[in-house]
Amino acid sequence: MSLALANTATRSDDARRVEARELRSRIRSGAHHGLTTGLAPGMVQLNLAILPAEWAEDFRRFCELNPKPCPLVSMTEAGNPIFPSDIGEGLDVRSDAPRYLVFRDGILVDEVTDLTGLWQDDFVAFGMGCSYSFEEALVEGGLSLRHIEQGTKVPLYVSNIETTPSGPFHGPTILSMRPFLPQDAIRAVEITAKYPRVHGTPVHFGNPAMIGIDEIAKPYSGAPPVIRENEVPVFWACGVTPQIVVEHAKPPICITHKPGHMLITDRLNTELAG
Amino acid sequence: MSLALANTATRSDDARRVEARELRSRIRSGAHHGLTTGLAPGMVQLNLAILPAEWAEDFRRFCELNPKPCPLVSMTEAGNPIFPSDIGEGLDVRSDAPRYLVFRDGILVDEVTDLTGLWQDDFVAFGMGCSYSFEEALVEGGLSLRHIEQGTKVPLYVSNIETTPSGPFHGPTILSMRPFLPQDAIRAVEITAKYPRVHGTPVHFGNPAMIGIDEIAKPYSGAPPVIRENEVPVFWACGVTPQIVVEHAKPPICITHKPGHMLITDRLNTELAG
Repeated sequence: MSLALANTATRSDDARRVEARELRSRIRSGAHHGLTTGLAPGMVQLNLAILPAEWAEDFRRFCELNPKPCPLVSMTEAGNPIFPSDIGEGLDVRSDAPRYLVFRDGILVDEVTDLTGLWQDDFVAFGMGCSYSFEEALVEGGLSLRHIEQGTKVPLYVSNIETTPSGPFHGPTILSMRPFLPQDAIRAVEITAKYPRVHGTPVHFGNPAMIGIDEIAKPYSGAPPVIRENEVPVFWACGVTPQIVVEHAKPPICITHKPGHMLITDRLNTELAG
Repeated sequence: MSLALANTATRSDDARRVEARELRSRIRSGAHHGLTTGLAPGMVQLNLAILPAEWAEDFRRFCELNPKPCPLVSMTEAGNPIFPSDIGEGLDVRSDAPRYLVFRDGILVDEVTDLTGLWQDDFVAFGMGCSYSFEEALVEGGLSLRHIEQGTKVPLYVSNIETTPSGPFHGPTILSMRPFLPQDAIRAVEITAKYPRVHGTPVHFGNPAMIGIDEIAKPYSGAPPVIRENEVPVFWACGVTPQIVVEHAKPPICITHKPGHMLITDRLNTELAG
C-alpha cells in the first residue's frame, strides 16, 4: 500500500478515475476477486451493508446518530441495486465489490463474489466511508503510518464507548489505532478534521484504559502494535463497528463486503474533504 | 472574561462592531487605559510590535517563518501610523492601544498610554493575532478553559522549540498551556485548526519534558496550573514569543503593547477563520 500511496501525487485526477473504472470493470466481470487495499489510489472505497427494507430505516438512523464509526456516503432505494450516480455511473452493488459475506440471523453462512442469485427486491444497500481515504490523506500530509511501515494490518480494539442505539442496532464502538509523536498526532487531527465522511477526527488518544482497553498489546484484530518512545496511541472509530452491530442485531439476512474487499467509487478522496 | 464570552452568542455582528469602535474611541481619547481582556467580545484583538524600518524586513520575515507564535495579521508602511483599512477604519497605532511598553537597546525604559511624542517617521508597526480569538472559539465550541474557570492568568512556559531565526531575531518559543481530557483536546485541535491567524493548532500535548519543560507546576508566568485526573496539558505557541525575541535583539528602540492591553480591531474573530 505504501508504494501505491507514494505514487498518488504524480497521477492526474482523470487518470485516477479511469483506473478506478477499469478496476471496477474487472471486479464486475469476475477477473478480480482479491483485496482492494492500495488499489485505485486517490479514490473513495466504501464499506457495504445490505439489509431488508424493514431494517433499513433504523440502520440509516443509526448511521446518522453515529457518524464517526458509520459515515454514510450513499445508499440505494429499496430493491434498486444501483447506487445514486453521484458516487459513480451505474455502480451495481450486486457485482461491483470483489467479495461479500452473507449472514443469516447474525451467523456467517456464505462468502460469495456476486450477489445476483441472492438479491431480494426489498434490499437496501448502504455505502460507508472507509479509513483508506483518511490514511491516504495522512500519508500525503507527510505522516508515516506504522502498520503500513511494518506491512501489517492496523490493530483494532473494542472500546467501552457505546454507539447511540437505533432500533435493534447498538453495541460498542470498534477503534483502529495508529501511534504518533504528539506533534504528528496534532497534525493527524488537523488532517482528518477535513474528512468527516471517512471517520473524521480521532475519538481518543493517550490513555487506552480510559476507553476500556486494558491491553494495548492484544488487539481484537490486526497485528500487535509497535509503539515507540514518546509516541501516543491515537484511536479512530472504525467501519468494523457497523458490521458487528448489524450481525448482532440478527436480521434474517444481511450482506456485507468482505473486509479489505471494498466497493470502488468514481469519487476522489479529495472530493470528500469538508 | 467568562461572562463576556457567554454573552457573545446573543449579540449581532453589527452590535459587536459598534461596541469595538466605541471602546477604541474611549481608548484613543484617554478614557480607557486598562486591560482589554474580555472587552469587545467577538472582535479580533492584536499584539503589537513597533520597530524602526531597518529592522522591519527581518521581523516581517521572522513572522512569516514562525506563523504559530507570530501570526502576522496586518502591518503598517514605514512612517505611517495608520493600519491598512482591512482591519478597521483609521486605526492609529499611536493612540489606539490602551498602554504601551517602550524598550531601548532591549531594556524596558517606559510605560506610556500614547505614542504621539515618541513616533518616528521610520517606524513600522506589526499587528499579530492573539489567543483571545481562539479561546473565544474554544468556549463557543463548548470547551471549558481552566484558567477562565479559576479566574487566573493562563500559564506560560519557555519551551526548547527554537523559532526559525531571521536576521537578529531568534529564541525559544513561549507556550501557553490549557489542560483538557483527551476527547476535548481533539476538539480543541479541530477548532483551532480553523484559526491559523491566531496561533492555530497546538504544538504539543501530553509530555512537557519532551519540549524542555521540566516543572509543569512552575510556569514562567501566569498561575500554576490545575490539571485534573486523566487530563493532558495542551500547549499552544504564544504571542509573548515575539515580544521576548524583539527585546533580545536589542533594537535601539522598540515599542510593544503592554500584555493584556491590546489593539481592538473592527474584524470579527469568525472572519479570521480559515
